[in-house]
Amino acid sequence: MTLIKGEKMNTIKEIANAIKGFDDILVLSHISPDGDTLGSATALIRALRSMGKRADFSCADEVGGIFSYLFEDLENIGFTPKHVISVDVAELSLLGENKDKYSLDICIDHHRTNKMVAKMSHVDETAATNTLIVFDLIKELGCEITPKIADSIYTGLTTDTGCFRFSNTDSRAYNAAAELYKLGANCAYINRLMFDTKTRAGILIQKHVLSNMQFIKDDKIVLTAISVKVLEETKAVESDLDCIPSLTRGIEGVHISITMKEKDDGKWKASVRAIAPVDASKICATLGGGGHMGAAGCMLSDNFEESKDMIINACVKGLEDAGV
Amino acid sequence: MTLIKGEKMNTIKEIANAIKGFDDILVLSHISPDGDTLGSATALIRALRSMGKRADFSCADEVGGIFSYLFEDLENIGFTPKHVISVDVAELSLLGENKDKYSLDICIDHHRTNKMVAKMSHVDETAATNTLIVFDLIKELGCEITPKIADSIYTGLTTDTGCFRFSNTDSRAYNAAAELYKLGANCAYINRLMFDTKTRAGILIQKHVLSNMQFIKDDKIVLTAISVKVLEETKAVESDLDCIPSLTRGIEGVHISITMKEKDDGKWKASVRAIAPVDASKICATLGGGGHMGAAGCMLSDNFEESKDMIINACVKGLEDAGV
Repeated sequence: MTLIKGEKMNTIKEIANAIKGFDDILVLSHISPDGDTLGSATALIRALRSMGKRADFSCADEVGGIFSYLFEDLENIGFTPKHVISVDVAELSLLGENKDKYSLDICIDHHRTNKMVAKMSHVDETAATNTLIVFDLIKELGCEITPKIADSIYTGLTTDTGCFRFSNTDSRAYNAAAELYKLGANCAYINRLMFDTKTRAGILIQKHVLSNMQFIKDDKIVLTAISVKVLEETKAVESDLDCIPSLTRGIEGVHISITMKEKDDGKWKASVRAIAPVDASKICATLGGGGHMGAAGCMLSDNFEESKDMIINACVKGLEDAGV
Repeated sequence: MTLIKGEKMNTIKEIANAIKGFDDILVLSHISPDGDTLGSATALIRALRSMGKRADFSCADEVGGIFSYLFEDLENIGFTPKHVISVDVAELSLLGENKDKYSLDICIDHHRTNKMVAKMSHVDETAATNTLIVFDLIKELGCEITPKIADSIYTGLTTDTGCFRFSNTDSRAYNAAAELYKLGANCAYINRLMFDTKTRAGILIQKHVLSNMQFIKDDKIVLTAISVKVLEETKAVESDLDCIPSLTRGIEGVHISITMKEKDDGKWKASVRAIAPVDASKICATLGGGGHMGAAGCMLSDNFEESKDMIINACVKGLEDAGV
């Protein structure tokens, strides 16, 4: 656990004790919500409600269809929040429109790049996934881990470890998976949904990627670009693009895979996956972004060629820094 | 654990006690060797050698380059075997040319379709992978689980569970992974090697598959065919084809994915992946093959159209039997 500069770092026990005195709690997820932030939020909300508290969810972005099972029977109650908790949110801007609406009571996160300001914080970068911290917190709160809570925690666990494939997968992650399986988590179902389910549009995207990927810098970098036009032609939605990193990562000799996506406003965004010792979070930090060592992201400009140069230059420097 | 008809089923303790009295032991893997049979064999051989016994390996097929790390410092000694143990071998024909060379002292397997005849047998179909049984056996033998043995056991564990993705992944599998991680298994390295590493030829194969896959029976079945000609054109080798099932499995609405491969002798072989309740092993059994419920295989004929009809008809029946 790292102490954030100027912030008091609290133990899980201190966080749990504070929460016991809370009510009307709003739990915030980060924008472009993934399985870890949504798994963390839904697990925590279910636990809080089981304690007789009112708890609601908010995310500035819409929550995609693939994650809808997490929200079954979890409609928002609707109240003016007295307490606000963020989960898996590394910095204020990742709250999107929620950024200026609330002041944070508690921040629970596992990103080493965490820059959040909250009354209480627990940031454990040794946790492979944020749901592992929430798992401990819910136990500390004395709540029963129901199968639905187990599903939520497992969802974060499996998505943020790439189904136990990424190098962050440690014995804590495996042991938690064993425990969650016993607690009734639908592991195989969740994994099929998260990793194996491909739409027809997704198949077309894969074909596009395989036909258009570009190899750079002695083939150490592979770059894929998905324009709004390609999305329109393939009828692909955001979640259809999730297959791309695993397609391009791991091609022999490739150390960095870049996926550039054109957003609706014409701006390009880069997702970077890197193989150690190359550090994706350092690369993206040079362009104002962040993330993990293995996977990070950043916003670029609204000019494709300029954006491409920006991210390629940052990646080439990342290769050099890592001595690759 | 199921008792095979006419065979005496032995406990791990009985098997271990017998092995303690053995020497000059040959360990046999099945043909078309995969991570589970090779992980089982190499783990066991290392354990046997640590007990001061002579132990060698044999497989009728060549062992592919991707698995070479399992055999580091494990050259065969060369001796006339006094005792023979098969690992992960469900039936005699899967020993290939080794079939008639040896009589089996011990059969260790986890296939419910096991039809082997051996003096002693331990077949535990509840074990997600055969290496989990070997893990227990090595502990029962009192051997230290070295990092190399942990690598071997983890290799079978991760490959036969599809990196903890298939429905056979249970808490025993996750707990074993946690234990192996602590014992020094290179989990992330092995997973990257097994699942993420793609050759340029593999990328061409993926492009071929995505461009040529055929949807059958209201899109419930997807079929891919890889001819010798395609292999020649893409310069792909056997292991470049491993990506195919995960490409085609999990397309929305697809219950069965078939991969047909033309062998060097012109005969076609089918690999079938199915989503429960459809049973791939039952489907392949009707054509003389076998395997697991989720993944199985069988040989077809040397005529492509005839082969295609054979496997499609078997799959259509498999869908009907499962009420899909």
